[in-house]
Amino acid sequence: MDPRPERIPRPGVPELDAVLGRPFKVLDDGLVRVVDYMGDDAAVVQAARVSYGQGTKAVSDDRGLIRYLLRHRHTTPFEMCELKLHVRVPMDAWRQWIRHRTASVNETSTRYSVAIDAAQRTAPDQWRIQAENNKQGSDGFASGELGARLSAEEAELQDRARAVYNGRLEAGVAREQARKDLPLCTYTEAYWKIDLHNLLHFLALRMDPHAQLEIREYANVIGRDIVSRWVPLVWEAFEDYRLGASSFSRLETGILAALGAGDPDRALAVARDAGWLQPARNGGYLRNRERQECEAKLQALNLTVPW
Amino acid sequence: MDPRPERIPRPGVPELDAVLGRPFKVLDDGLVRVVDYMGDDAAVVQAARVSYGQGTKAVSDDRGLIRYLLRHRHTTPFEMCELKLHVRVPMDAWRQWIRHRTASVNETSTRYSVAIDAAQRTAPDQWRIQAENNKQGSDGFASGELGARLSAEEAELQDRARAVYNGRLEAGVAREQARKDLPLCTYTEAYWKIDLHNLLHFLALRMDPHAQLEIREYANVIGRDIVSRWVPLVWEAFEDYRLGASSFSRLETGILAALGAGDPDRALAVARDAGWLQPARNGGYLRNRERQECEAKLQALNLTVPW
Amino acid sequence: MDPRPERIPRPGVPELDAVLGRPFKVLDDGLVRVVDYMGDDAAVVQAARVSYGQGTKAVSDDRGLIRYLLRHRHTTPFEMCELKLHVRVPMDAWRQWIRHRTASVNETSTRYSVAIDAAQRTAPDQWRIQAENNKQGSDGFASGELGARLSAEEAELQDRARAVYNGRLEAGVAREQARKDLPLCTYTEAYWKIDLHNLLHFLALRMDPHAQLEIREYANVIGRDIVSRWVPLVWEAFEDYRLGASSFSRLETGILAALGAGDPDRALAVARDAGWLQPARNGGYLRNRERQECEAKLQALNLTVPW
Amino acid sequence: MDPRPERIPRPGVPELDAVLGRPFKVLDDGLVRVVDYMGDDAAVVQAARVSYGQGTKAVSDDRGLIRYLLRHRHTTPFEMCELKLHVRVPMDAWRQWIRHRTASVNETSTRYSVAIDAAQRTAPDQWRIQAENNKQGSDGFASGELGARLSAEEAELQDRARAVYNGRLEAGVAREQARKDLPLCTYTEAYWKIDLHNLLHFLALRMDPHAQLEIREYANVIGRDIVSRWVPLVWEAFEDYRLGASSFSRLETGILAALGAGDPDRALAVARDAGWLQPARNGGYLRNRERQECEAKLQALNLTVPW
Repeated sequence: MDPRPERIPRPGVPELDAVLGRPFKVLDDGLVRVVDYMGDDAAVVQAARVSYGQGTKAVSDDRGLIRYLLRHRHTTPFEMCELKLHVRVPMDAWRQWIRHRTASVNETSTRYSVAIDAAQRTAPDQWRIQAENNKQGSDGFASGELGARLSAEEAELQDRARAVYNGRLEAGVAREQARKDLPLCTYTEAYWKIDLHNLLHFLALRMDPHAQLEIREYANVIGRDIVSRWVPLVWEAFEDYRLGASSFSRLETGILAALGAGDPDRALAVARDAGWLQPARNGGYLRNRERQECEAKLQALNLTVPW
Repeated sequence: MDPRPERIPRPGVPELDAVLGRPFKVLDDGLVRVVDYMGDDAAVVQAARVSYGQGTKAVSDDRGLIRYLLRHRHTTPFEMCELKLHVRVPMDAWRQWIRHRTASVNETSTRYSVAIDAAQRTAPDQWRIQAENNKQGSDGFASGELGARLSAEEAELQDRARAVYNGRLEAGVAREQARKDLPLCTYTEAYWKIDLHNLLHFLALRMDPHAQLEIREYANVIGRDIVSRWVPLVWEAFEDYRLGASSFSRLETGILAALGAGDPDRALAVARDAGWLQPARNGGYLRNRERQECEAKLQALNLTVPW
Repeated sequence: MDPRPERIPRPGVPELDAVLGRPFKVLDDGLVRVVDYMGDDAAVVQAARVSYGQGTKAVSDDRGLIRYLLRHRHTTPFEMCELKLHVRVPMDAWRQWIRHRTASVNETSTRYSVAIDAAQRTAPDQWRIQAENNKQGSDGFASGELGARLSAEEAELQDRARAVYNGRLEAGVAREQARKDLPLCTYTEAYWKIDLHNLLHFLALRMDPHAQLEIREYANVIGRDIVSRWVPLVWEAFEDYRLGASSFSRLETGILAALGAGDPDRALAVARDAGWLQPARNGGYLRNRERQECEAKLQALNLTVPW
Repeated sequence: MDPRPERIPRPGVPELDAVLGRPFKVLDDGLVRVVDYMGDDAAVVQAARVSYGQGTKAVSDDRGLIRYLLRHRHTTPFEMCELKLHVRVPMDAWRQWIRHRTASVNETSTRYSVAIDAAQRTAPDQWRIQAENNKQGSDGFASGELGARLSAEEAELQDRARAVYNGRLEAGVAREQARKDLPLCTYTEAYWKIDLHNLLHFLALRMDPHAQLEIREYANVIGRDIVSRWVPLVWEAFEDYRLGASSFSRLETGILAALGAGDPDRALAVARDAGWLQPARNGGYLRNRERQECEAKLQALNLTVPW
């Protein structure tokens, strides 16, 4: 163990202290703010040097070591840092959020308390049209007139649902039952506490363009406004090795290696042996998701698809 | 390790096999059914005998060992059994359900699929009145006329919310956004898989009278109709050592011991030293939750409160 | 949510800051020291008030609320606090320690680094004799002469094992293989980080008299020297509701209630119906662990065993 | 939810049933055998189709869906399968093994029982020499004479340690204390139960060439002899998308794209801007781990390093 005494007083990060308790606005009425934290870039390094001892001597500086750890998917040193947020978020986004089981949560109860009197509202130009080719995604926005109608209808429904809720409370109905018909997008609030390793995993999934817009906006704020201030070296490495990284399967790696060797025939053989090149009746190949994803990756690398 | 070969073929429980895939109805339109399971009472015993070896020799039979394990809060042998359920449950109960972070979950997505066209409906005689003395609970039911009005209003609101949802889909709005104003009590479905130790913890909390009625009904079905068939010895022990158990704090234990010794003065002194007996202005004592809970426990044991 | 701004600057605990980085000695060559922490008594209260909202109004003060939370086994508010320790501990105690899966760990690697040159040594008067009636425990100490012989033998074996280890390293054997015959009690070091809820669970199990002496000494230091300074209200409640609490099964509760009502016959009937009173050939009853444990509890409450 | 009834009777895998309970030998005296399991390839598919509903329609067959799930790092469908093994393993490998916190474990206790009378022995030709350039690894084997000496010394030390252990037991020392100087490589036995998602993560780390040889041999047996029989489609996908995959950072992806476009100057600029090309005093570049790793990857793809 490092013979130097532990750092005293306990570490702080002035850049993060500067925004402690300050609300970052998200969506129409949501927020994220830092309540407390433990650790910093140096805490990650300290933990790694304990674990790997002499093995870390070769890596001369903290930045290099942090990049090495993230590149090789070491996880435990990042668990040594902890972040505690106060969030205000629509329940339908929150439903996705708490599927991450590695965080600690204290959410406002609507059994004990009256539900927050706010539901997320959608501006007329923010209604997203279902993507044709992607069941999960959206593609473009509703036109002005349609958007206006949808927003009016939304306001009317939310007002009605709230009136019913309030009416039940006035009639003496138990809060735990009265809430049952509130809209899914009613705002809730919570403390959410998580270690840095699991937070990065959350961010990698929820900052991804495939994540739903609403939770993605929260993830972007947490990543770009908070984590980047808190542990700047980890954040830089995360952008390089997670957000901006690309990954290739065994077959794709074989195709890249064949193309690298100037041997497109071998690349073609890899694809054919994998069953990617079944002829379609009308010429071309049968739809094959693996092949299509590979093609997109080759194009992103400016390589010619060899089939 | 036990030199006997492992049991082959792998263990099955005929009593549970008999209900495999059979839906147990819950609430107005919910269900629970067993999809698969692993282990049985004997698997708990087998694991314990490996762990404790000669230490388990003294306990002659499986039932005695299982009771011993549960009584002394051993946990790992119960983790050796696993249950996988298919559930259909209103989202507001599901929100409580998945706060148990130790289960595996695959829930129907309302991003990829159209939301289930069913929300939980409340019969006119099932509207619960908020308890006066318990923020979290309910107390009695709404009168006939009021109940009828609340149910009619509920139906009208749910129909309206569904119509808005369907209208958004028809207008081409992305499913992930269209769902935002569905009622919290819209039904969802999921596979839910959990080990027996964590399942018992779930049941202890959710079969408790303080749990909300809706989730309690699910917990009762899982406990009484499923777990009792699957691992009958564990279930019997669970009823004796968890559901029916009582617990006393250090102070309460001191009071019981003083009363047992026929020394109510000493019991009184314990309470006084704990600050439980601050005089109120109007006579009697200041409200004190610990004292009141202790009084209730003494009365349940047919003991005279010594103050 | 509480409209008051979060506490800024982030909370600190001067009593714990005073011992930050200071090693608490354990065993002959072990230690525990606090590296960092997050949260305090007030953070537990803050989280609970968010969760339970109006439900917590009735509990007038922080101490009362913390006691209520621990008494009713609420867990999530305690997860809001986090402690990070540096420990030096024999590997055989560490083997037990890390079975607690809810902590984050960075342990010194003996693949990357040379193993710590220290193994736990036993003083001649510290050799514990195996208990007759408890496979797991010990009972008294070896006599002076025997103890001296055992300690001499221990020193000789440890020196021999270290010499073999060093010889292997000198011969160029890989560290990861050279270590294979080091004694189980060789010291290791680690950072160990855990939230307060899981820490209390660890302490309840490892401060228990049934825990092995070595790990119990660490648990006692962590509890009495560290947690008591860090979150004094939680610690006080933990002593009252966990360490000093007692628990009674459904059957035992029935017996207590019968005795409380002055009806030993009914208590007797409960025991008989439970099968606790099978006559032994030589008079008295057949050995029955549940009955014996119940008898011990009754005696601790100064009650007469009714059979 | 899929309207088809759940599969009844519960699914079994004949290929795995055929080896149920059969010990697979590992190292000189270790073993792995399957005790029980839950689920199969179809259970993964079933869970995914529930979650993604219409989103999975486009993927025509089970194999394609499983490959899609693994390629895009979906995790929860794989959690629906569970495997329970009986393992016999040296404690020093077991120390690494149980750092995977997501499994359930019941290990033979050396407090309750006498320790297993076997420690792992090393054949004269199996002593690995420490790698020069890799603190963590090994490189080649000790020569015949040296190997023979090391093995003789190992046997002598293990015999001595066992004699001391037995002597302590005979002298009445408590088992929990007597064991303290047993060699780290003493065998232990355990039940180990884990879901398929976490098992694959374990295998990805422990089948990796950087994992220590001993635990790697266990991982290889679990992967190639057990998982491949149990869930053959998942196993095939795992080999393609994990074991055989390669990954490139944001910078590396930029370099690949530049080379793909036939623009080595741009590739050079990326490296220079990243600070990879600091000139060394003696010509060439300063040692830089990121650059070196990138060079190795480019060479593996048969590409010319552009600097």
